[in-house]
Amino acid sequence: MNVNEILKPIERLRKVGARVHCVSNTVAQNFTSNVLLSCGATPSMTTSKEEISDFVANADALLLNLGTLDFERREVCYLAAKAAQANNIPFVLDPVMCDISSTRLEFAKRLLTFPPNILRVNKSEAAVLEEEIAEVSKSCCVAMTGEDDVMLTGAGTTTIHNGHPLMGKLIAVGCAQGAVIAALASVADKYSDAILATLLWFGVAGEIAAEKSGGPGSFNTAFIDELHNIEIATIAERARLD
Amino acid sequence: MNVNEILKPIERLRKVGARVHCVSNTVAQNFTSNVLLSCGATPSMTTSKEEISDFVANADALLLNLGTLDFERREVCYLAAKAAQANNIPFVLDPVMCDISSTRLEFAKRLLTFPPNILRVNKSEAAVLEEEIAEVSKSCCVAMTGEDDVMLTGAGTTTIHNGHPLMGKLIAVGCAQGAVIAALASVADKYSDAILATLLWFGVAGEIAAEKSGGPGSFNTAFIDELHNIEIATIAERARLD
Amino acid sequence: MNVNEILKPIERLRKVGARVHCVSNTVAQNFTSNVLLSCGATPSMTTSKEEISDFVANADALLLNLGTLDFERREVCYLAAKAAQANNIPFVLDPVMCDISSTRLEFAKRLLTFPPNILRVNKSEAAVLEEEIAEVSKSCCVAMTGEDDVMLTGAGTTTIHNGHPLMGKLIAVGCAQGAVIAALASVADKYSDAILATLLWFGVAGEIAAEKSGGPGSFNTAFIDELHNIEIATIAERARLD
Repeated sequence: MNVNEILKPIERLRKVGARVHCVSNTVAQNFTSNVLLSCGATPSMTTSKEEISDFVANADALLLNLGTLDFERREVCYLAAKAAQANNIPFVLDPVMCDISSTRLEFAKRLLTFPPNILRVNKSEAAVLEEEIAEVSKSCCVAMTGEDDVMLTGAGTTTIHNGHPLMGKLIAVGCAQGAVIAALASVADKYSDAILATLLWFGVAGEIAAEKSGGPGSFNTAFIDELHNIEIATIAERARLD
Repeated sequence: MNVNEILKPIERLRKVGARVHCVSNTVAQNFTSNVLLSCGATPSMTTSKEEISDFVANADALLLNLGTLDFERREVCYLAAKAAQANNIPFVLDPVMCDISSTRLEFAKRLLTFPPNILRVNKSEAAVLEEEIAEVSKSCCVAMTGEDDVMLTGAGTTTIHNGHPLMGKLIAVGCAQGAVIAALASVADKYSDAILATLLWFGVAGEIAAEKSGGPGSFNTAFIDELHNIEIATIAERARLD
Repeated sequence: MNVNEILKPIERLRKVGARVHCVSNTVAQNFTSNVLLSCGATPSMTTSKEEISDFVANADALLLNLGTLDFERREVCYLAAKAAQANNIPFVLDPVMCDISSTRLEFAKRLLTFPPNILRVNKSEAAVLEEEIAEVSKSCCVAMTGEDDVMLTGAGTTTIHNGHPLMGKLIAVGCAQGAVIAALASVADKYSDAILATLLWFGVAGEIAAEKSGGPGSFNTAFIDELHNIEIATIAERARLD
């Protein structure tokens, strides 16, 4: 695997930008926006059904994140997914905490039939979507995050060993990852590169930020700085994947 | 009063964790989540009526915070409070800014009849709930925060003199306090210990963070670090309560 | 133009405070609140139609920010604007991203007929509201922000050259600006002073914060500190306007 090739979309995103429309949860919206800006992208976040089609039509990518999934968000998810398909932009699904609520799980399963281009899950969410992931990973790339991050595609699995425990002490890191995957998917040749580049970018930036931090608060600050400043050569050097 | 005994739930929370379901306002959700993570707990925050019962049923504690109280939140508060009682988990009520809106005040009064196990208020909110607090403090523990923090129980009042004015320059410190009280209530032997431990934890962490800060922005960062890092012996040493 | 005269409302706000009611988007609410607190004001943010009139009636100023403009926010905007006029408090309108959605643009145009006392827009929003701005700027002061910030009034235009590119890497700086303009409008003799004072305050604080920052994360922290700490003499010294 050629790491330099995988990381090229990062350079492209920093140069040309991308607007990612995120139907995301109210907990993660601010952090996700700041991460996108640090990464060279720009966010938009409306969850209004009157506005969503206009916002998605002109966006470069779509993220549907199922946190704080109220009635309006549910309605809007369908409209947004349809607009993404109609406009041929990448569509990333993140079924946050679908292992806790049965109605959210059902909803996630229905969205998976679209299907999205990329699915982002953690280990607990993956466990309740095992069957669907086996099916969907034939056509859709899956990013499964945890202590180690794993990418599943029809071609096999890749594991990424970068990252730091402090990333788990900061809310919405996973949610922001979904948004950056969407941003990179809009400039990458392959969706699998968008996933791997994001996981490496976050993992190495997280490691360096942790070295400079004294706790979860200063980690938050350092992580955003690092996502913005880190050189691609540094990510390549520290990348640990197999 | 044995301070070391009071602070024991902090140690327990850091060891075993707790998921706190927060029906909270959209202003405070991100900060509250980061505070919970720094304190060893984990948050969930849905305000969807289709999801709330599942989320509360598996949670270790419930916080109802009445900020940005839209129609959906109002409906969900009842369902959440019922689920908390049915599952026998601690229920903390924080009737944010109920002194400003008469409909919010009425709603707060109705929720007080459940009653919650713990009520968190500031001085202005306490002033419009005087009668209810006199009644409810027989069975429910009340945390009243301000320049000095006061705990009211059937057994009497305790005053805590820790804290720093910069805590009032950071939004949602009080909201986050309610969430941590809920987290500690799930591992404490007595609700009164959960309140006192939280007020001391926040107060002393706030004092130390202020010493390291150059303004409200750097205080935010330092406060989260301190909540995470502070040793229980340090809280005990600097505790000022009577 | 007497800069010291223009900056006087900042001193007044820091001394007497002001509660600004913000109907704002869920992305910007937390940051806007922290900015208001750092500037000496206090926020309230409900978007509930049952509560909005009480909250606005007792507030010192109103901001309507049209981000994440769901159905409830739309209803509430009218009620809030009416309550602001009935109680004779300043009303600031910020039609965020109205250049992207046609329904949001229509809504912004209808709110402009109230009219607001102050309109805050960026260059893209101004481009789709050209006609309305030409009309409204006879009676309402317009703050148009971008690389350079411009104020339009019936009396002419003023340009402010302060600021730093890192301000564009932090979400919701513009949204928070609208809230501070509202706060200053409640204590200023002229709405034009409220605009100029805010643009200078943000611009100079942004420049100083950027000097102390290593990226968008540390800029966030330093910017909030600087808004809180900066002396009026420093703003006056570094002000570049014509």
